[in-house]
Amino acid sequence: MTGFGVANLPYGVFRRAGEEPRVGVRYGDGVLDLAALADDGLIEDPSGALAQPSLNAFMAQGPRAWAATRERLQRLLSGVDAEPRLIALDDVQLLLPFAVADYVDFWSSIHHAANSGRIFRPDGDPLPPNWRHMPIGYHGRSGTVAVSGTPVRRPHGQSHGSDGPVVGPTRKLDVELELGFVVGTPSALGEPVAVERALDHVFGVVLLNDWSARDMQAWESRPLGPFTGKSFATSISAWVVPMAALEPFRVPGDAQEPAPPAYLREDPWALDIALGIELNGESVARSNGRHLYWSVAQQIAHLTANGASLRTGDLLGSGTISGPEREERGSLLELSWNGAEPLTLRDGTQRTFLEDGDEAVLRGMAGTGDDAVALGEVRGQVVG
Amino acid sequence: MTGFGVANLPYGVFRRAGEEPRVGVRYGDGVLDLAALADDGLIEDPSGALAQPSLNAFMAQGPRAWAATRERLQRLLSGVDAEPRLIALDDVQLLLPFAVADYVDFWSSIHHAANSGRIFRPDGDPLPPNWRHMPIGYHGRSGTVAVSGTPVRRPHGQSHGSDGPVVGPTRKLDVELELGFVVGTPSALGEPVAVERALDHVFGVVLLNDWSARDMQAWESRPLGPFTGKSFATSISAWVVPMAALEPFRVPGDAQEPAPPAYLREDPWALDIALGIELNGESVARSNGRHLYWSVAQQIAHLTANGASLRTGDLLGSGTISGPEREERGSLLELSWNGAEPLTLRDGTQRTFLEDGDEAVLRGMAGTGDDAVALGEVRGQVVG
Repeated sequence: MTGFGVANLPYGVFRRAGEEPRVGVRYGDGVLDLAALADDGLIEDPSGALAQPSLNAFMAQGPRAWAATRERLQRLLSGVDAEPRLIALDDVQLLLPFAVADYVDFWSSIHHAANSGRIFRPDGDPLPPNWRHMPIGYHGRSGTVAVSGTPVRRPHGQSHGSDGPVVGPTRKLDVELELGFVVGTPSALGEPVAVERALDHVFGVVLLNDWSARDMQAWESRPLGPFTGKSFATSISAWVVPMAALEPFRVPGDAQEPAPPAYLREDPWALDIALGIELNGESVARSNGRHLYWSVAQQIAHLTANGASLRTGDLLGSGTISGPEREERGSLLELSWNGAEPLTLRDGTQRTFLEDGDEAVLRGMAGTGDDAVALGEVRGQVVG
Repeated sequence: MTGFGVANLPYGVFRRAGEEPRVGVRYGDGVLDLAALADDGLIEDPSGALAQPSLNAFMAQGPRAWAATRERLQRLLSGVDAEPRLIALDDVQLLLPFAVADYVDFWSSIHHAANSGRIFRPDGDPLPPNWRHMPIGYHGRSGTVAVSGTPVRRPHGQSHGSDGPVVGPTRKLDVELELGFVVGTPSALGEPVAVERALDHVFGVVLLNDWSARDMQAWESRPLGPFTGKSFATSISAWVVPMAALEPFRVPGDAQEPAPPAYLREDPWALDIALGIELNGESVARSNGRHLYWSVAQQIAHLTANGASLRTGDLLGSGTISGPEREERGSLLELSWNGAEPLTLRDGTQRTFLEDGDEAVLRGMAGTGDDAVALGEVRGQVVG
């Protein structure tokens, strides 16, 4: 399958019937059982991290260990060594790949932020005054981060009616197309991480769907931000793509004007990853990781500038990634302009937000052909 | 020491030099070594939860197990059984008592919320339109929750200057006097916890100082809420007071007008706990748990109404607890009215916000005499 060759080798956690969960690497349509490879002496794992039911112990080992394992796997798969153990994807259950420590969701796509401004504050500046000075973010609920495939129950909550608050199922259930950066190496409390050292802490990338109930979010958010409009579910792909696999797709980023403060300053860069949203099997949006204004390095420098520490398993969402074009909007809020411009699907039905039974799938792919690197899909069906 | 008799028996985690951390209970000026009591067969601990370096395994066992252990400890300490093992407090180090899962900070004191409104929106309604309809909250950073005694380094960050953003150490470092409710029993994803069942999930209460950098918070919060202005540190007491110990101090709460939606409706109640802030040994504010408008049961019902699950170790901050009187303000923001009305300390110096070297201590006490129940102090010194 395209995108899962030796150029990728993403990590996940899988379970075979009757066995304990353990760490695996996706290769084509199969899963390499890393704990078994270690048992056979084909890769090194003196601490037993690869036999754990989460990636955290392996992620905590840092960039040198990640590189050594990756190099060894690439050699094994190139046939120089013994034939590796490969299990068919159909024979395993994929689990949440790591225990999420803190989940921070940023708001780093300028097109998404500006679209939000145009929708909710049509007479004002599309961007709030702080936006170009720092990567705005907030903490989300780490306990409800779930692996791709987990159904999403339509949340109930309060929204604002013409005659006061209304309680009931959300009428504006939305998806958000995001990248999620996963922290491997922790940092010390009280010691800011410099922007140029930030990537040393990043283990890899997942696709992330930050499910949102727009009506609940709008009513509750003043002044402390999103809470129950977001906290019911966040879905991530089952596979964490190593940063090393995405290095070839690093491209110059858009200029940042005005220049950010010194602690955030770096040569602008982004990851050229084609992204898309499918609704019931039909493509409804495409976007690209290039459209992120703030990099994950800047996010980490900002997050730790106050002395806050990073922990292994911290998940940093990019925020919805939208591009400048109409079809490059990373949420139904933007695609339907908050319901004013419904989408017509191939089956003739219309959508403003998600209906019960709808299935949303996020996809991501960097490059093409044998060198392509796929992000694992994020799939979720809405249950009423 | 008053407040730590058999009526209290709060749980914590301690370490003696050269030994592994384990669960203890504070009794007077000593600590009962629960793992040792279990080894001696004086209390039951078949799963070894009390020999763990955090309370989480014990907290996950649920109300029946908590009640059984508490009853057994009260009998032991009443001298009916063998003399228990007691270690002097001076001989132990107190650690963070539990691994924090998600940290949610609410905003449930009406006097605090209204004071904030009067300070920041002097021409508007002191309360935002949603405030009386639901307990407003947001997620905080669980990775920077620290035990009492941990120094707090003055955070650096961005704030709004007359000529654009300014980067540097906060000039408005503040304390927030809060109660923190600790979740023991988890709940299932997708299944809201009814308000009348919510307390089944609450293991106990800590005092909580939600350190805040007001200038950073003000600049970053629009529109996604507090982030780096809060995430650098949250301090909690070393002792978790069981809900059972506070049951005698449950009092009727203020009427809620308008009546909240059905999923939040209960007979209003609160906990009569005298609270105070000391700055460099001098009392600068007193307040009371009675001044909470929203109960922890309502907070849990609201938090889970959208299907979000509770995990063992979730920490629910009440938000700053202020009373109606001037001296009952639970933050320096309110006590100094955002700097407009400096406090004069006994030593003749003035304070608007915290200075380097200042030590803040939060205290809490329910009742008096032998039946009193003390919350452990929350102490923290500002390091420049």
